[in-house]
Amino acid sequence: MPNHNKIAIYPGSFDPITFGHLDIIRRASLLFDTVIVSVARNRQKKPLFDEHEREEMIRRCVSDLPGVEVDSFHGLLVDYARQKGAAAVIRGLRAVSDFEYEFQMALVNRKIDENLITVFLMTHDKYSYLNSTIVKELVSLGGDVGCFVPTHVKERLNEKLRKK
Amino acid sequence: MPNHNKIAIYPGSFDPITFGHLDIIRRASLLFDTVIVSVARNRQKKPLFDEHEREEMIRRCVSDLPGVEVDSFHGLLVDYARQKGAAAVIRGLRAVSDFEYEFQMALVNRKIDENLITVFLMTHDKYSYLNSTIVKELVSLGGDVGCFVPTHVKERLNEKLRKK
Amino acid sequence: MPNHNKIAIYPGSFDPITFGHLDIIRRASLLFDTVIVSVARNRQKKPLFDEHEREEMIRRCVSDLPGVEVDSFHGLLVDYARQKGAAAVIRGLRAVSDFEYEFQMALVNRKIDENLITVFLMTHDKYSYLNSTIVKELVSLGGDVGCFVPTHVKERLNEKLRKK
Amino acid sequence: MPNHNKIAIYPGSFDPITFGHLDIIRRASLLFDTVIVSVARNRQKKPLFDEHEREEMIRRCVSDLPGVEVDSFHGLLVDYARQKGAAAVIRGLRAVSDFEYEFQMALVNRKIDENLITVFLMTHDKYSYLNSTIVKELVSLGGDVGCFVPTHVKERLNEKLRKK
Amino acid sequence: MPNHNKIAIYPGSFDPITFGHLDIIRRASLLFDTVIVSVARNRQKKPLFDEHEREEMIRRCVSDLPGVEVDSFHGLLVDYARQKGAAAVIRGLRAVSDFEYEFQMALVNRKIDENLITVFLMTHDKYSYLNSTIVKELVSLGGDVGCFVPTHVKERLNEKLRKK
Amino acid sequence: MPNHNKIAIYPGSFDPITFGHLDIIRRASLLFDTVIVSVARNRQKKPLFDEHEREEMIRRCVSDLPGVEVDSFHGLLVDYARQKGAAAVIRGLRAVSDFEYEFQMALVNRKIDENLITVFLMTHDKYSYLNSTIVKELVSLGGDVGCFVPTHVKERLNEKLRKK
Repeated sequence: MPNHNKIAIYPGSFDPITFGHLDIIRRASLLFDTVIVSVARNRQKKPLFDEHEREEMIRRCVSDLPGVEVDSFHGLLVDYARQKGAAAVIRGLRAVSDFEYEFQMALVNRKIDENLITVFLMTHDKYSYLNSTIVKELVSLGGDVGCFVPTHVKERLNEKLRKK
Repeated sequence: MPNHNKIAIYPGSFDPITFGHLDIIRRASLLFDTVIVSVARNRQKKPLFDEHEREEMIRRCVSDLPGVEVDSFHGLLVDYARQKGAAAVIRGLRAVSDFEYEFQMALVNRKIDENLITVFLMTHDKYSYLNSTIVKELVSLGGDVGCFVPTHVKERLNEKLRKK
Repeated sequence: MPNHNKIAIYPGSFDPITFGHLDIIRRASLLFDTVIVSVARNRQKKPLFDEHEREEMIRRCVSDLPGVEVDSFHGLLVDYARQKGAAAVIRGLRAVSDFEYEFQMALVNRKIDENLITVFLMTHDKYSYLNSTIVKELVSLGGDVGCFVPTHVKERLNEKLRKK
Repeated sequence: MPNHNKIAIYPGSFDPITFGHLDIIRRASLLFDTVIVSVARNRQKKPLFDEHEREEMIRRCVSDLPGVEVDSFHGLLVDYARQKGAAAVIRGLRAVSDFEYEFQMALVNRKIDENLITVFLMTHDKYSYLNSTIVKELVSLGGDVGCFVPTHVKERLNEKLRKK
Repeated sequence: MPNHNKIAIYPGSFDPITFGHLDIIRRASLLFDTVIVSVARNRQKKPLFDEHEREEMIRRCVSDLPGVEVDSFHGLLVDYARQKGAAAVIRGLRAVSDFEYEFQMALVNRKIDENLITVFLMTHDKYSYLNSTIVKELVSLGGDVGCFVPTHVKERLNEKLRKK
Repeated sequence: MPNHNKIAIYPGSFDPITFGHLDIIRRASLLFDTVIVSVARNRQKKPLFDEHEREEMIRRCVSDLPGVEVDSFHGLLVDYARQKGAAAVIRGLRAVSDFEYEFQMALVNRKIDENLITVFLMTHDKYSYLNSTIVKELVSLGGDVGCFVPTHVKERLNEKLRKK
């Protein structure tokens, strides 16, 4: 019964993780036996948090969710997914602009590996406007992001962005 | 281990089923233990095929797909899903206009039942332009729809729409 | 000081009024001295509630909002606005598809009367998926719409749509 | 030199023709040797003007444009185009919602006949909000549509829609 | 009567101001008693004109509009609006892509301060394609932007971008 | 007979050329007597391939297409088009986001030169997800892009991006 341990990968920058991401992870964990939340290591982009910090913040958030693992990867997502034995890649959708980009990437990934299925989950409407870039911008302008990210993430953001 | 038999519902009009729907069903069957393809019985809309014809055409198409069942329902999708013990509702996405409507329905359903998860799968790019309405329009204009629907569906369409 | 009594018109079908509409009305009443919520009488469309029922339901909802009046109109919106001495027309925006249609109508109205200003307000994210059509569909399928419309509207919907 | 007489078809409902359509026709006539403006005869839709009226109104508008012919067709557009020896089908684009539908139809037509090329031209920004449905609605509400359609079309609209 | 002096803020980069911005400012000045056009001072972005130049160019454009003031701000827009006693924030909308971003920011701002109302005004169709980035690009390529910006702005652009 | 040699320009970055571009070029060559594929020399953007490399790669791809020339340009597209005697500018459309940007540029160009016509052609659905940026990203992550670009382009990409 090879189908019984269904593995899904939820890749992303998670720079840092927000309540919007956590909503997707919680829902994905109800659909799949194992959900691997995996930080994309991308040499070109300069993240605010390095991959170890990002992984650690995710780990603190998902420790009570059964079947959720945290990892990081570089290279092609389809290669990583194959190596992990994943049946699906999870992506969150919030708005039309997300949709276009995500659709394009899903089509490219399908072209490279016909067997990898991209599964789109909808972000809760109360997080529909939320992304990591906006959270960082708000912190750097002096805003309180306590309703967008967990407390320990908020503290890390304040440390990083309000030093000056 | 109640999670192990994961059931998903793929609701729709399927008036009639197309290769685009079949692509979604095949992929959904790789992710879930049971996929119930369920014809929506809607008194307001006047379908070309009645629900029995639509169910029968779907059955001929999915007979070789393990774990795929065919059914019909009326009333609220969330009530039907709860009654079937479904963890997820499957919807196919093709274009931005799909996305807006589907997103809206998924948010309404989430509002009514927080536990029901809508899962969006992407239609294969080669069927991205395809829907049942266009297929019916092509047939009624004298076009050959053999590359859009299975042969037995094409024959039923020709019978219905070219009688005059 | 002719500018001091700023009048805005919020036209719509309101068939029936929802919490989404009420959110827009409340916000508009903070920006303008007078807000006229005006039911469009359209001979072509067949509303569920006639204009008197729709006006009455709106009246019950806005009785505590200072400066909000309820009316109905037929003919061109720009003619009605001019006759009322309105400086602005209020429209709610929820999604991209709204935006396109609303933008088109606002451009047409601007072409007919350069002085009439269309003001777009954003529907609260928790009502972003909500419209009167979905509410009616949910009621006719047996759903509870108590989180989408006021109680007295819900009761009227149940009377109208569940008679059979 | 079979390529030298390039024929393009501009199909549509033209119920009735507007300044937006005329802008597209004029531009198309600069790109192609022959442009056939062709009224789609569609049994399902109930037009305001019958096909003879629509053709006649178009003829009055394009009489001074060299290489522009007026015709009507029924059945599949790709069959009609092939029969006319057309290299291209012209479609006007105004907004995102146009784009999605037009794109879908162009992909379907390409699937049926790989050699037929759909050419999209952009409507002038001053007509970006304009379509035949809005023009008819304005007339029926008592509006003056002299800036949207030629005088003879406006007169025909007034006759048809203000009789009652 | 605390509501009688209604203040609105129109924030932006204005790098530099265009006829599209001026159209929005003129319309906003008809709706609100005071409109504060406010240059966002953003350390991360590198503007072509510094904030003093940008404010000065705006001042020259709006000197004849009653109730219009020019200012600059840094930090959170909602904090600035509260400090100014503003009831509304004005944003111009041109296209679908604008809409998505603006909507997201308006939802974030509403989350931070429920009382601040974002008011969207539509840019005139003849400026629907216009933004400061395109104007700068045209100038640097040698184009004449006299139909997009006032003469004194055009001169400043030519000085800055054609020095080499 | 001034209309007989119809010239169209297909401008772009082509960094590098993909099968999506080639599909557009092939179709454009069926509509126009001469198609000039022209590499935009843009000092601001840092391309992976310099203009000579980009031109050379295009030349190898289009050598068998009659009437197709390869060139490069800098400055305003409308000036270049006028100088070449072009009647049209060709642009490929794939998705809604393309559409918005392309539409904006076409309106700007129309404003600058009313006589220059932008012609949009649709990219084949099997290349709808494809652009040069994604191709470069895939190569740098170790992916095989043989189904997205011609072999000689793939080799150049591997040389450039896998040196380290």
